[in-house]
Amino acid sequence: MTDARDPETLRRKLIAYAARFPFFNLIGFEVLDLGPGWAHTRIPLRPDLTNPDGIAHGGVIATLIDISITEAMLMTDEYAKVRDTRGSMATIDLGVKYLRPLREGTLLCKAEIVHRGRRVAHARAVVTDEDDRQLALGTATMMITLGESAPRNR
Amino acid sequence: MTDARDPETLRRKLIAYAARFPFFNLIGFEVLDLGPGWAHTRIPLRPDLTNPDGIAHGGVIATLIDISITEAMLMTDEYAKVRDTRGSMATIDLGVKYLRPLREGTLLCKAEIVHRGRRVAHARAVVTDEDDRQLALGTATMMITLGESAPRNR
Amino acid sequence: MTDARDPETLRRKLIAYAARFPFFNLIGFEVLDLGPGWAHTRIPLRPDLTNPDGIAHGGVIATLIDISITEAMLMTDEYAKVRDTRGSMATIDLGVKYLRPLREGTLLCKAEIVHRGRRVAHARAVVTDEDDRQLALGTATMMITLGESAPRNR
Amino acid sequence: MTDARDPETLRRKLIAYAARFPFFNLIGFEVLDLGPGWAHTRIPLRPDLTNPDGIAHGGVIATLIDISITEAMLMTDEYAKVRDTRGSMATIDLGVKYLRPLREGTLLCKAEIVHRGRRVAHARAVVTDEDDRQLALGTATMMITLGESAPRNR
Repeated sequence: MTDARDPETLRRKLIAYAARFPFFNLIGFEVLDLGPGWAHTRIPLRPDLTNPDGIAHGGVIATLIDISITEAMLMTDEYAKVRDTRGSMATIDLGVKYLRPLREGTLLCKAEIVHRGRRVAHARAVVTDEDDRQLALGTATMMITLGESAPRNR
Repeated sequence: MTDARDPETLRRKLIAYAARFPFFNLIGFEVLDLGPGWAHTRIPLRPDLTNPDGIAHGGVIATLIDISITEAMLMTDEYAKVRDTRGSMATIDLGVKYLRPLREGTLLCKAEIVHRGRRVAHARAVVTDEDDRQLALGTATMMITLGESAPRNR
Repeated sequence: MTDARDPETLRRKLIAYAARFPFFNLIGFEVLDLGPGWAHTRIPLRPDLTNPDGIAHGGVIATLIDISITEAMLMTDEYAKVRDTRGSMATIDLGVKYLRPLREGTLLCKAEIVHRGRRVAHARAVVTDEDDRQLALGTATMMITLGESAPRNR
Repeated sequence: MTDARDPETLRRKLIAYAARFPFFNLIGFEVLDLGPGWAHTRIPLRPDLTNPDGIAHGGVIATLIDISITEAMLMTDEYAKVRDTRGSMATIDLGVKYLRPLREGTLLCKAEIVHRGRRVAHARAVVTDEDDRQLALGTATMMITLGESAPRNR
């Protein structure tokens, strides 16, 4: 996506990329900030993101967690190797616990990588409302596959 | 949503309701058919439902599973009691295993309820492509809360 | 198990109960300490708790997490109501992520309740070795059912 | 564990190995039968495998699922490659849904591999009582790592 090595440049590029990415725009997903191993994100609730009871749809919350956990990987050294070798990273397992409904306001998410192995990374995420009440908890496992191309010159 | 007791009438109402529901329309979700304890559904892939690699976004697949599992409950006797007593049903746990990417075509989902307790139901779902290749597996747990209103006359 | 209302008395009774409980003895499980919403526990590794590669068996780690999460509930107000009304509490969902193997030493576990609803509680746990390296992460959902007996006099 | 290539010989060796394996003996685990991608197993309930309410402990059920899923891999072609190259296979994720308690009798488990990728396998398992009533459902993800040694001559 970029081979910028300066963290601040990479951070800005990633946030700008997210801001115009079609699927993120479709559901109103935004990256608030991110760094190596973490991301803060949100989706403001809209009527077309609710279930028949008028609360945030479980699929929207699962999507928020899935995207946020991936964003939390993008500035890690492990992901830099994926980028350098044109490898790939894929979520292989996603788990969501739903705690409380959200009727209005904004879904906020904090995701963090809790384990980075050579081939597998584990992450977790918390979704809260604007008063910091927990709405959902997420976990994910990602598989990292390095490519076979030699790292490009920097 | 309806107190129709005739299964065929209920089935048609549920399919019609889904066809015009805003969140389902947003992501192109459709109910193909459903019955007591099962649902067949789909989401045709579109460019704005993909991730940066051009494959179906994990959040879209998680959403497909979450919706489909709920649809599979809607014609069960257990859910009829929820409807009668103005109670509620909520997914409390959702799990997704991602097996293969989908680059084009349609995400198809078959969801089934595998255990119906008095207060908890467990479900599973398989997502395939149009050639019946498994793309993802899902599991979910739903909590059933009966309301306090007396069942309405039938 | 006890209706002692003094937290320190309850804590001692729970630790003593665990120390002589047959299944815990079978696998060498011990409660180090516990309080309302948390528990610190361990299982020293033995040859008959390993898999064919000589590392701690995944089932032992899953068991450690399952027991520890339950222990973390036993001093909560929510569980006091279960005890008072002769209700019940059951784990309905357990998830374990395995991060690293343990070849010798002791499996240490810290479990905490992260959400306590009226009918559902969610917990998480971390298993480490004696050098505090993460070996496994756990999550669990418990269902709380109050009994119908009136609370006993205190 | 063996380099026997005849399936029937391998099957017998695996069953015999399980029958004398210390951890399996500790908890009374037995392999009833297995083949490529599936295993049928059991643990007869004993007083020291129960929780304080006298029902099969959740950790015993999680252990039964974890072992059975691994057994289901041992006769697959994918695992033959692991054995040939002195590679390794590890469960990275285990999930258990508890449906009903078992008070007496035998825990029976049927495990099957539902997806075999080059590096990841997914499995599921059902635990029943002797009347075939579902007691628990399990899912697992295993990571396959081929070793670097050349396959041994056959």
